[in-house]
Amino acid sequence: MESIEATGDVLKPNCPSRMVVERLGERWTLLVLIALRRGPVRFTALREMIGVVTPKVLTQTLRGLEHDGLVLRTVYPEIPPRVEYQLTGLGISLMGPVDALRQWSETNSRHIVAAREAADRQS
Amino acid sequence: MESIEATGDVLKPNCPSRMVVERLGERWTLLVLIALRRGPVRFTALREMIGVVTPKVLTQTLRGLEHDGLVLRTVYPEIPPRVEYQLTGLGISLMGPVDALRQWSETNSRHIVAAREAADRQS
Repeated sequence: MESIEATGDVLKPNCPSRMVVERLGERWTLLVLIALRRGPVRFTALREMIGVVTPKVLTQTLRGLEHDGLVLRTVYPEIPPRVEYQLTGLGISLMGPVDALRQWSETNSRHIVAAREAADRQS
Repeated sequence: MESIEATGDVLKPNCPSRMVVERLGERWTLLVLIALRRGPVRFTALREMIGVVTPKVLTQTLRGLEHDGLVLRTVYPEIPPRVEYQLTGLGISLMGPVDALRQWSETNSRHIVAAREAADRQS
């Protein structure tokens, strides 16, 4: 890995890094990355892991991540064909921050729930 | 701060932590949190920092973050009234992971751009 250097500014609309943050801010992207963190997963298993997502939207999300070089799609020539998705090296390098977000969410969700309940009581 | 313990599983549809990840996966949430990382910001300045977002959608995003206890809205009784947004303590605790994502995006966006160009050449 290279040393960390800031080469962009996500708050500049034309900075490529902003496109990356916008990709991460798409509806299912974070959950798909999290679902792939332990290794290759087949499409149907991935859909079961994510839950309510439709096949069409999950396919769009995976194509976006593939296009960005974060996810690798492999088709095994079996009958029926087996299709697996896994993180690329670049995708794996993203898992540090993504997994920190996952951990934060799992640890702090009760504070969020409490804040929501308090806000709803006031309104 | 408490010690880190996983109290949830973001891949379980009914787990509150999943709602948190889904909130972070809303279109402008990450960029708003990043824009607020250095301190209180007025609505108009925030809109200029984020860029293309409409006032209506930025207001919705901020209300969601306020409802979650991540952002505090303060109205100063001036003429015209001054409205500022800032991270709460809970919001500040989220900035470790969010800032790691920002740094990763700023450092690695050129790899994403290269992957996109390579994919576009193939198709």
